[in-house]
Amino acid sequence: MPDYAQIKKELEGLAVEDNPALVRQKSRDFYWYSPILKEELESVTADLVVSPKSEEEVIRVLKVAYAHGVPVTPRGAGTGNYGQAMPLSGGIVLNLINMNKVKEIHPGRVIAEPGIVIAELDRQTKAHSGQELRFHPSTAQTATIGGFVAGGSGGVGSIHWGGLRDLGNILRLRVVTMEAEPRVLDLTAWDLQKVTHAYGTNGIIVEVEMPLAPAYDWVDVLVGYDDFMDAVRFGDALAHKNGLLVKEIAPIAAPIPYDYFPRHKPFLRDRNQSIVVLMIAPHSMDAFTAFAERQKGEILFRSDKVESMKGIPHAYELAWNHTTLRALKVDPGFTYLQVQYPGPDHVAKVEKMTKLFGDEVPGHLEFIKFDGRMQCSGLPLVRYTTRERLEEIMQIHRDNGCPIFNPHRYTLEEGGMKQTDTVQLAFKKETDPKGLLNPGKMIAWDNPDFDFSAGKNYLFPGLAAAGG
Amino acid sequence: MPDYAQIKKELEGLAVEDNPALVRQKSRDFYWYSPILKEELESVTADLVVSPKSEEEVIRVLKVAYAHGVPVTPRGAGTGNYGQAMPLSGGIVLNLINMNKVKEIHPGRVIAEPGIVIAELDRQTKAHSGQELRFHPSTAQTATIGGFVAGGSGGVGSIHWGGLRDLGNILRLRVVTMEAEPRVLDLTAWDLQKVTHAYGTNGIIVEVEMPLAPAYDWVDVLVGYDDFMDAVRFGDALAHKNGLLVKEIAPIAAPIPYDYFPRHKPFLRDRNQSIVVLMIAPHSMDAFTAFAERQKGEILFRSDKVESMKGIPHAYELAWNHTTLRALKVDPGFTYLQVQYPGPDHVAKVEKMTKLFGDEVPGHLEFIKFDGRMQCSGLPLVRYTTRERLEEIMQIHRDNGCPIFNPHRYTLEEGGMKQTDTVQLAFKKETDPKGLLNPGKMIAWDNPDFDFSAGKNYLFPGLAAAGG
Ligand SMILES: Cc1cc2nc3c(=O)[nH]c(=O)nc-3n(C[C@H](O)[C@H](O)[C@H](O)COP(=O)(O)OP(=O)(O)OC[C@H]3O[C@@H](n4cnc5c(N)ncnc54)[C@H](O)[C@@H]3O)c2cc1C
Ligand SMILES: Cc1cc2nc3c(=O)[nH]c(=O)nc-3n(C[C@H](O)[C@H](O)[C@H](O)COP(=O)(O)OP(=O)(O)OC[C@H]3O[C@@H](n4cnc5c(N)ncnc54)[C@H](O)[C@@H]3O)c2cc1C
Repeated sequence: MPDYAQIKKELEGLAVEDNPALVRQKSRDFYWYSPILKEELESVTADLVVSPKSEEEVIRVLKVAYAHGVPVTPRGAGTGNYGQAMPLSGGIVLNLINMNKVKEIHPGRVIAEPGIVIAELDRQTKAHSGQELRFHPSTAQTATIGGFVAGGSGGVGSIHWGGLRDLGNILRLRVVTMEAEPRVLDLTAWDLQKVTHAYGTNGIIVEVEMPLAPAYDWVDVLVGYDDFMDAVRFGDALAHKNGLLVKEIAPIAAPIPYDYFPRHKPFLRDRNQSIVVLMIAPHSMDAFTAFAERQKGEILFRSDKVESMKGIPHAYELAWNHTTLRALKVDPGFTYLQVQYPGPDHVAKVEKMTKLFGDEVPGHLEFIKFDGRMQCSGLPLVRYTTRERLEEIMQIHRDNGCPIFNPHRYTLEEGGMKQTDTVQLAFKKETDPKGLLNPGKMIAWDNPDFDFSAGKNYLFPGLAAAGG
Repeated sequence: MPDYAQIKKELEGLAVEDNPALVRQKSRDFYWYSPILKEELESVTADLVVSPKSEEEVIRVLKVAYAHGVPVTPRGAGTGNYGQAMPLSGGIVLNLINMNKVKEIHPGRVIAEPGIVIAELDRQTKAHSGQELRFHPSTAQTATIGGFVAGGSGGVGSIHWGGLRDLGNILRLRVVTMEAEPRVLDLTAWDLQKVTHAYGTNGIIVEVEMPLAPAYDWVDVLVGYDDFMDAVRFGDALAHKNGLLVKEIAPIAAPIPYDYFPRHKPFLRDRNQSIVVLMIAPHSMDAFTAFAERQKGEILFRSDKVESMKGIPHAYELAWNHTTLRALKVDPGFTYLQVQYPGPDHVAKVEKMTKLFGDEVPGHLEFIKFDGRMQCSGLPLVRYTTRERLEEIMQIHRDNGCPIFNPHRYTLEEGGMKQTDTVQLAFKKETDPKGLLNPGKMIAWDNPDFDFSAGKNYLFPGLAAAGG
């Protein structure tokens, strides 16, 4: 057991919290989305929360932690869904929310500290020069930019730009290593893959440089169809209209909107309406409405025509993982999937799954650019019955050419491609020789021989040892 | 013969020119690109040039012309390639170059008069709020926005936005009709198709509202490959990188760059280098160079690293129809084609044509977005031998699934899809009952029974009557 009294002494002058209730609070994220993770991670908690205000303070913390062999798990706002920010072996939660300054804004790019909330970052770049991030998660109002880079993948705007993994969507990351003498590294271009979506297992991000796109007063629009597949086809057709500037296209199947979007429910005709959640540039609205009319879409809601937006959430807060959240909040009997429908026949794949599962798996799609081509991924809801049936639903998707990303796992590998990311592993060897950064999240580090094909979940031994 | 003395009297107070040499000058465009059009249109000239300064003046001119039954052919800067702006039946050339004011600039859109030169429009929107047109022809330094809308199709930036015909790429056109009492109509959304690329045959555009994109200090880059197909594959791969912001990708086959781009020649290693002409956003340069390196591309030229840009033209002035212009200026033995290579196998189609024709048809491609998909069109040069061989080359393209748009015709139909545009024809019936606007350019108007499949060129009878 590390000597925390001594550690606190060595961290004097920094914001350190050891009240167990508060520490426990900051040791949590949205892991409870998954009934499986909820069970596995329930007891996880850290020993201390340290909230640095600068790169220098981050370096100080890592130096002390390294000397004492104490794990450090970085944390933005804790909105991740897979326990990414949860300290499986206890130790220090490095809370970065106070490192929240915008440093520089230029045409096409911004330099900021990692702990700034994404919506606040967008507010500042918009006020400065009419710019905003290319895309953001639907949690923009609470999530941090550092947490997005380290734990997210894409979001509102990915319909143009693809995801964080795509070359050019992050310009530079400044990273502090976990060594006796922490180093500060600036990573660009291909090197960014070392730490992007690595859950903070191989470096603490202390500065981000992100590309910007023009900011517009995006108009929130809901378009209704009586048939979910008509909504999907409309979304697909719209996504292929070069001249219409659209930031978000998310078809969501009835009865989800009617049942779980209470603020928008008054705008729906009835419970059988599927909707397409949209964000459209104001200067594309004329052309958009002409297009929607020709496609026989019913425009149910326009934020630029509604009397008051008071109490009505942003359209994007109906989409991405907010769809799931809204359903779950009302009915805990839901769980969800993360599905890819590779193009060019993505619409046909969606149609097949929709026919197969009907209301057991209400559809929810997100159109995104993938290698320069439009396709869709999905976050369909699942009316949960048994674990076996859930497995079966996933297998049927895979059998039909729709890969599944499992949202019920806390490791990088199991949540993703079920294979070792050799670049990230090699970088961890360089930057975190003692394996103290966010332990238990990279199987390749802890158990290089783990057999993914055996069909068993990885259980991090340190998890039982520390919290359990 | 109209009474021009009387007409001039009725136009008193307006800028009217009747000096035959000057009138003849303003009755020409870049029709001489085509040996065929050069012969056919050589003698065409107007009787008067009138240069209105306002919508009111345009209305006055049209009213007088209508009363006297005099044809009116609008003119921007006369940079069209197909005699679009040439007054086949004489009459009045309506020169719009003095209607050149920017009226309003907003986030994402600009309202301007039609005669403003495109580069000047971009200069003003950039200075105002860091914005510029979504795309422009390579003639931006001389061409007008009105002429582009009425006679052009796409250009630099079409890699993102597609072409002018795509819904949303023009927001509004204000048009004056050719009637006893000219009307002023504001067209939006689908209605824009009535006058876009109609050569001014059914209304005079007196105001345009265009969408804007963010303006960056685009970096001109030339990348070299020893094999043209490697250059094409590089261009295609780059066009599919979501995260890299690129405004122009044009592969051009050796030895064209070495032989005809004298200012860039010093940067080429030798005559066998094919190049890719690029414009890259400054904040995408790091990622771009990392990508180019991995693709084994040789970066020959970067405008942000060159000692002085003095005397070096914009990269886009090597591309689009400037490629052709540069070769033609030195060697009049060239002519060219306009080819489409429909995707998704566009690269394979290019490869097949390249193998078939070799140096007889040196390749030149432009990557553009087409219905939401990346594909390429081409403006390959042709080392002209005989008319039969030219026809054969075109036929071989068609036989291989590569449609040809014939640049050697002055009518809307023959230069395009060889079919009647019923929307434009119907609108002409409304707006130009006497058929006085730019006569001879719309076959459907002059000769509804013309048989496109008969393989004969249309010869406008009025052409012989007036000029010939
Ligand atoms: C309702 C809902 C909707 C969501 N929608 C989306 C979506 O649209 N797209 C999407 O991608 N995700 C989405 N998410 C997941 C999550 O909200 C986002 O990825 C978010 O950007 C995470 O930011 P955060 O600040 O909360 O990060 P946290 O959850 O605090 O951290 C995420 C990961 O990054 C690490 N980390 C945090 N800061 C740093 C740092 N400075 N250096 C190194 N590592 C660090 C943490 O250790 C953790 O592993 C959603 C989640 C919910 C609950
Ligand atoms: C070297 C070279 C490169 C080129 N590159 C491109 C390119 O990249 N993309 C492209 O699309 N084109 C290209 N072109 C063709 C041409 O330059 C463009 O289409 C240009 O925008 C035409 O503008 P303009 O002002 O010169 O029009 P003009 O040639 O003067 O007119 C074009 C047509 O529009 C009509 N017109 C003009 N003004 C009005 C008005 N106010 N109301 C109604 N009708 C009107 C004219 O009657 C005529 O039919 C190129 C030409 C050359 C010579």
